[in-house]
Amino acid sequence: MLSDRLPSNFGTTLLGRLDEIAGCSEQGSGVTRLPFTPQHRSANRHIEHWMTRAGLQVRLDAAGTLVGRRPGPDDGPTLLIGSHQDSIRHGGRYDGILGIALPVLVLETLSDASLPFSVEVLAFADEEGVRFPTALMGPRALAGTFDSACLNYTDYDGLSLGDALRAFGGNPDEIAQLRREAAGLLGYLEVHIEQGPVLEANGLPVGVVSGICGIERWRVVLTGESAHAGTTPMHLRRDALTGAAEVSLGLEALCRETENLVGVVGSLAISPNVVNAIPATAELTIELRALNDGDRNAAAVRMEEKVKRIAQARGLSHEIQKTYAQKAVACDSRLGNRLSDTIANLGLEPMALMSGATHDASAMYDLCPVAMLFVRCKRGISHHHGEAISAGDAQVAGAVVCRLLENWEV
Amino acid sequence: MLSDRLPSNFGTTLLGRLDEIAGCSEQGSGVTRLPFTPQHRSANRHIEHWMTRAGLQVRLDAAGTLVGRRPGPDDGPTLLIGSHQDSIRHGGRYDGILGIALPVLVLETLSDASLPFSVEVLAFADEEGVRFPTALMGPRALAGTFDSACLNYTDYDGLSLGDALRAFGGNPDEIAQLRREAAGLLGYLEVHIEQGPVLEANGLPVGVVSGICGIERWRVVLTGESAHAGTTPMHLRRDALTGAAEVSLGLEALCRETENLVGVVGSLAISPNVVNAIPATAELTIELRALNDGDRNAAAVRMEEKVKRIAQARGLSHEIQKTYAQKAVACDSRLGNRLSDTIANLGLEPMALMSGATHDASAMYDLCPVAMLFVRCKRGISHHHGEAISAGDAQVAGAVVCRLLENWEV
Repeated sequence: MLSDRLPSNFGTTLLGRLDEIAGCSEQGSGVTRLPFTPQHRSANRHIEHWMTRAGLQVRLDAAGTLVGRRPGPDDGPTLLIGSHQDSIRHGGRYDGILGIALPVLVLETLSDASLPFSVEVLAFADEEGVRFPTALMGPRALAGTFDSACLNYTDYDGLSLGDALRAFGGNPDEIAQLRREAAGLLGYLEVHIEQGPVLEANGLPVGVVSGICGIERWRVVLTGESAHAGTTPMHLRRDALTGAAEVSLGLEALCRETENLVGVVGSLAISPNVVNAIPATAELTIELRALNDGDRNAAAVRMEEKVKRIAQARGLSHEIQKTYAQKAVACDSRLGNRLSDTIANLGLEPMALMSGATHDASAMYDLCPVAMLFVRCKRGISHHHGEAISAGDAQVAGAVVCRLLENWEV
Repeated sequence: MLSDRLPSNFGTTLLGRLDEIAGCSEQGSGVTRLPFTPQHRSANRHIEHWMTRAGLQVRLDAAGTLVGRRPGPDDGPTLLIGSHQDSIRHGGRYDGILGIALPVLVLETLSDASLPFSVEVLAFADEEGVRFPTALMGPRALAGTFDSACLNYTDYDGLSLGDALRAFGGNPDEIAQLRREAAGLLGYLEVHIEQGPVLEANGLPVGVVSGICGIERWRVVLTGESAHAGTTPMHLRRDALTGAAEVSLGLEALCRETENLVGVVGSLAISPNVVNAIPATAELTIELRALNDGDRNAAAVRMEEKVKRIAQARGLSHEIQKTYAQKAVACDSRLGNRLSDTIANLGLEPMALMSGATHDASAMYDLCPVAMLFVRCKRGISHHHGEAISAGDAQVAGAVVCRLLENWEV
């Protein structure tokens, strides 16, 4: 029904494989699989086994990416499909690894088919950036944007990324040679759990990512004056917390009225923080994410004005400082349309949604056109042992990728 | 000018005495003088010396209150005047002790005068409640409201209040006998720094306290759901911090629109408290103080409704729990009028203001009519080494008390 070639047990088989590889984890709740560890090695053994069953040619590249290649016609183009094998500490069993296991199982299904292009499934080592203070080495190596200074970054045991990579079988000295040319690449496709509640709220199993949000973060400090909460009349107070409250609600209002913009005050600390004293200082963070960098910049300007105005009206002094910024990534509209058409052909509504989180696709964007297929996740929960997708949705996602490949003429 | 009898150096002499006794302190910034300590003993030596100079008969009562009595006619009534000798840790040099040093110096000035009543200056041991988890033993003993179970409370070294009192020269077994009868008492007068900015804002050296606020405190917990701040659309969030922000601003608005009501969210903690996660929980305190218990109760009802409504609108669950309550104390209007008339006779505006803080007068209220005279404090700062009053204001306060006593006919 969904795809002629896809067996009806595709979804359950896929979930079985994901349950199996979830065992490649440090002990504790959920999945903890950091890059270049025994758990990573063990996961790669599973992936290599699946890839081999699918008829792929398997190798580990110099940056630690496990690559499974299905050769097409000699002078034909190549489609890249992939995601990351690693997890956060106590993460879920779908984030990243779904985007490796799914295309490999689809290619196993298609092993007798003839495709007019090569396919490479890329199992990147490190997207989460938990072990080393960097991430995305695999896709950055392919895009030629990897900064070799990162190889000196060390983990909690003082081991450098370069040494960990070499011990794992990679080769820091050859990373620069991994750089690919855009010519000959059809693009990069990533299948990923949504990690949010949008598809669930819309009753849809899959969706097409329109782009990956840009991000910026600000640190704001409001300073008033502490005083006895009983003896200071309301109109003589310089309460830093009520100022922070206005900032928090102002950010919420701004994001609610702007499409494809989200923002949060995620962190807030006040001082002296006792029941009977007026708060003297409030230190908070503002995070803004938008599909469009222009929208994000405009929102940042408005927030800065809001903070200034709130502080002035309340007799507070304020500091505001940008601590982080990352540009938005637009998914390729032609690849997106292919995904949307495929979904529509399966009789489903092809919903477009933005990705609020960063993905390997963010780095692959510097190499070639990128596309992402999101799969509905239960209650939007991710980065948590409760992360879940259904076998039915896995079946739909498999069908979309299978039909996409089958119908792709070059 | 201000009072015929008061020497023009009254204010500077008084401030000199307060500087001197500020030395009776643990080391560190500001004054740290806890009850029944060597610092307390040393302070009492100063007070006893001043009392003796003023012709008072000095004794330590069973509850550790140093009492200086100036006898009047045998069958005449008695006016009680006092405050506390103790400070918080790193407190100021005026809070409490001003209300002991000032009347003693006034009585020294009046030592040749004839008054138709006795006067007792009461130097209470413990109003701040820093050393033991109780306070106001001295005035409660006089009012007959002292709970002897408190004698078993221990300090940081495990020493009980009862044992500390006994070692200091008091007698736990005789506290019950300290109870006074209201008959024969003119009332209780307490001179105290304002500990707030109202007099300064109004350009007045002294003011008459209309009452001591009642207090209640609430603990509120709002619980939503944490989620990735990038992947969760604004309308699907259950952000506990924005809920807390509305509570904080709602409390502020309610207090701003109600006279003699103040309130603060003094303490707030959120979780998980990271830059890129939606806050799941916010735990905060609400404190309300009002001159009128009815106003306070009405405000508490409205705040509880507000919290419920905010939580419902945001899909948050909430807990709300009263953790503390203390009734308001009305100052005696006849004594207050005497103070106001005296101030007016000195050519000053007799401003009435509420006390947001608790005082020894709060406990003395259970014994007899109470009145309080507030003295302007610099920038409203108190419980801090920067606490300050001017010699000029001390002169005015002395003149008020001096004239009050001189003109009091019984």
